[in-house]
Amino acid sequence: MSTSSFSARNLLLVSSSRFDGGEMFGHCQAAVQAHFAGVSKVLFIPYARPDGLSHEAYTAGIATAFNQMGIEVVGIETYADPKAAVAAAEGIFIGGGNTFVLIRDLYENGLIKPIRTRIAEGMPYMGSSAGSNMAGMSISTSNDMPIVYPPSFEALGAIPFNINPHYPRSEDNRHMGESRDQRIREFHHFNAQPVVALREDGLLKIQGNSIALHGNLPVRIFHQGKTPEDLMPGADLAFLLEE
Amino acid sequence: MSTSSFSARNLLLVSSSRFDGGEMFGHCQAAVQAHFAGVSKVLFIPYARPDGLSHEAYTAGIATAFNQMGIEVVGIETYADPKAAVAAAEGIFIGGGNTFVLIRDLYENGLIKPIRTRIAEGMPYMGSSAGSNMAGMSISTSNDMPIVYPPSFEALGAIPFNINPHYPRSEDNRHMGESRDQRIREFHHFNAQPVVALREDGLLKIQGNSIALHGNLPVRIFHQGKTPEDLMPGADLAFLLEE
Repeated sequence: MSTSSFSARNLLLVSSSRFDGGEMFGHCQAAVQAHFAGVSKVLFIPYARPDGLSHEAYTAGIATAFNQMGIEVVGIETYADPKAAVAAAEGIFIGGGNTFVLIRDLYENGLIKPIRTRIAEGMPYMGSSAGSNMAGMSISTSNDMPIVYPPSFEALGAIPFNINPHYPRSEDNRHMGESRDQRIREFHHFNAQPVVALREDGLLKIQGNSIALHGNLPVRIFHQGKTPEDLMPGADLAFLLEE
Repeated sequence: MSTSSFSARNLLLVSSSRFDGGEMFGHCQAAVQAHFAGVSKVLFIPYARPDGLSHEAYTAGIATAFNQMGIEVVGIETYADPKAAVAAAEGIFIGGGNTFVLIRDLYENGLIKPIRTRIAEGMPYMGSSAGSNMAGMSISTSNDMPIVYPPSFEALGAIPFNINPHYPRSEDNRHMGESRDQRIREFHHFNAQPVVALREDGLLKIQGNSIALHGNLPVRIFHQGKTPEDLMPGADLAFLLEE
């Protein structure tokens, strides 16, 4: 499915569920509420299991945070048939955690195509961290540790670029491991799609071919073979959706 | 091949090629020289390509650094038959860079089994960063970005544990992404083997069933379901090689 099949897409892609130690989704509450306005119940997919949380415990935590925003949540683990749950969902939220565990479980449950279909139909999709990686073309710009081997790195492809969440505000210069920018340059030796690096207060709202950055910090955009550019909220980002 | 087949192994596993911005291998020069004493030429495997360096350019840089230590180097890219090069090597060094590119190219060139065989025979093997990850059971404790999809995460398995290189001296507490310790805890939700986290001046010298830590900073050892422990150079680490 080409990403141009997604002219009805309605995506909210959040870098991090927390910012500067604040309340969960406190930095993006208004955007989350607007995104799911009119949705009676959001289907939550807890497969990324941060800190190895059980699906039930992860869903319970998200439900508490969403209920405080006036949004009802049901976890996909409560359905005997997860494909049917996706097919019937009014809105889907995929939470953060480990991207490799997440994508493995999405493939093993046969959910990649069903979620693509629902996004193409215009169902509101929200991702946070690993869930935002999943909206991109591949998980190859994840920051996570590859703790399980998934059947593919190919993600939902609802946008013609990759996300890099938790983009740092500064680098520890004593550290001799690769910097984030170096990692993304290395990505571009093997992959052509742009990478949108979201700092931790950042989120993208994408409706069809319009795209808006929310937050106070710039987004860093990496194009293959070019110097990365920082763009502030309010800048025209529509070029990212051209194919 | 069980790791107990490696009773003749002779490994030097370095966390980082540089420490605190010093000369390449300056912090471990004596250990490298002792490791390759009597080896007329070390076979260098440049597949990890840091910053996308060509094989030739990467080998040239390593050859310069090794020549200053009195060690001759030849790059595997100069051989028409890389398997034959491994079979004939007196010593092998796998350098750092991107672990996913490295393991993909090792599998694509059919080199996993030949290198295992040579290590089992007692040929000196050195790894730095990604090359140290390769000596472990899997690359699932790599810090690298998954920029290409390899056919497997299963590594050489010359030791019954995993390596985590570039283990940080401190964490940026404002950062809401996963900490290194959290990532390794998540690894242990899905994998049983211990993880040895090497700070940047650290290296392990492993001969048969003896193991020594060099450097000035402690190594952090993570066991599944237990609190991690910091051990200083000189501590008894032989328990890591028991199976």
